Amino acid sequence: MHNYKPYKKDDQHSYALGLFPVIELLEHQPKLVKTVLVSNKIKPSTGLSKINALCSQHKLQIKEVEQSVLTRLSRSENTFAAAVFDKQTASLAVDQSHVVLVNPDDMGNLGTIMRTMVGFNVHDLAIITPAADPFDPKTIRASMGAFFSLRIAQFANFEGYAQAHSHYHQYPFVLDGAQKLAQTTFTTPASLIFGQEGSGLPKTFDTVGTTVTIEQSDQVDSLNLALSVGLALYKQFIS
Amino acid sequence: MHNYKPYKKDDQHSYALGLFPVIELLEHQPKLVKTVLVSNKIKPSTGLSKINALCSQHKLQIKEVEQSVLTRLSRSENTFAAAVFDKQTASLAVDQSHVVLVNPDDMGNLGTIMRTMVGFNVHDLAIITPAADPFDPKTIRASMGAFFSLRIAQFANFEGYAQAHSHYHQYPFVLDGAQKLAQTTFTTPASLIFGQEGSGLPKTFDTVGTTVTIEQSDQVDSLNLALSVGLALYKQFIS
Repeated sequence: MHNYKPYKKDDQHSYALGLFPVIELLEHQPKLVKTVLVSNKIKPSTGLSKINALCSQHKLQIKEVEQSVLTRLSRSENTFAAAVFDKQTASLAVDQSHVVLVNPDDMGNLGTIMRTMVGFNVHDLAIITPAADPFDPKTIRASMGAFFSLRIAQFANFEGYAQAHSHYHQYPFVLDGAQKLAQTTFTTPASLIFGQEGSGLPKTFDTVGTTVTIEQSDQVDSLNLALSVGLALYKQFIS
Repeated sequence: MHNYKPYKKDDQHSYALGLFPVIELLEHQPKLVKTVLVSNKIKPSTGLSKINALCSQHKLQIKEVEQSVLTRLSRSENTFAAAVFDKQTASLAVDQSHVVLVNPDDMGNLGTIMRTMVGFNVHDLAIITPAADPFDPKTIRASMGAFFSLRIAQFANFEGYAQAHSHYHQYPFVLDGAQKLAQTTFTTPASLIFGQEGSGLPKTFDTVGTTVTIEQSDQVDSLNLALSVGLALYKQFIS
């Protein structure tokens, strides 16, 4: 009856693909779930038992499908479970620190950053568009399901974000900032702001809030974006 | 005359693929270069001028080849330059800190770690095999050419590495270590030791040197390997 098609950016729904992302979805956002799909080729495992238990707890039916359906959805022959969920834009917290990514362009990095955020207890992500699609199953998979533990909101420009959170202390990460990271104590709630992999933040951010630079050797142009975010979040986490 | 074939692990040579890796190779390891290949479709650019200047400086001839040769070597249609170089195992420094990776299994992560090492002035990498191939062009590309600024040595087991560097202070990174990273001051020269993405270090490392744990929330199983290495190297860099 249903015809499951690979995800497209304009869809109202997306997919958690694979046992681990499906479990994370069922644990953190069960109300968004429309359908849980399991392959007719799936083998018994702890993961499958967990999916069964969670579906029973949330009164969700599991639908068995041909493996070919999941292979087509995920473009991988090693995906034995999937869940369809409603895409929903969240409201960000108004009293907890945010990560703000300005025009991130790589889904893998975006997912890695989501996982890192959960690792350091930051659960609010603002994305300034145009940007890699946070709802794309590739991003979700790279996040190892951390996607489902975050509130994520997209903004057409930084001003829109900043106006909605004008009481936040803004920290743009740039190459030649006013402070070094090791000497920075973030006043919360903080907006930790990062630019695109490669090009970094536009010059206009030099006059925004308190600019911060991560100490590094002069032998590389810049650090990897996901690492920069991780270093900043770790610094806040241990403070 | 020459027949350039895609890299295989047992080859005595490997390839720098793409303008940036070729430049890094010519700048840091010109003596390893056997041949520099440039596509008949390449367009003038700052990168190409740099390659020309470096080849002239090191008296290396540039060989023009059909684009199809580079496409086949790199499995990408966007590779316009390449260089063949001799694989060489280095001797690690005996007075500077090392990163030691035990059985790393992902070339992308390995390359990212190489870039991070250069970013924090650590230039010696020990790899305990079996492991992802550090000489594979995919690893080199992921390192953005940082590969050519490192000394890299492979060891069949950790004992072999440890015996050769018995004066080093060993810091295995584990989930339940004796010290937290924020409270750790590395005594140099240090061996910063990390396990496989996912499974981490074997239990046997619990009694090696001083075990260190990176502070994190209890909401993720573990941090990404490249991030863990980055956090440790940053801590040493700013100390």
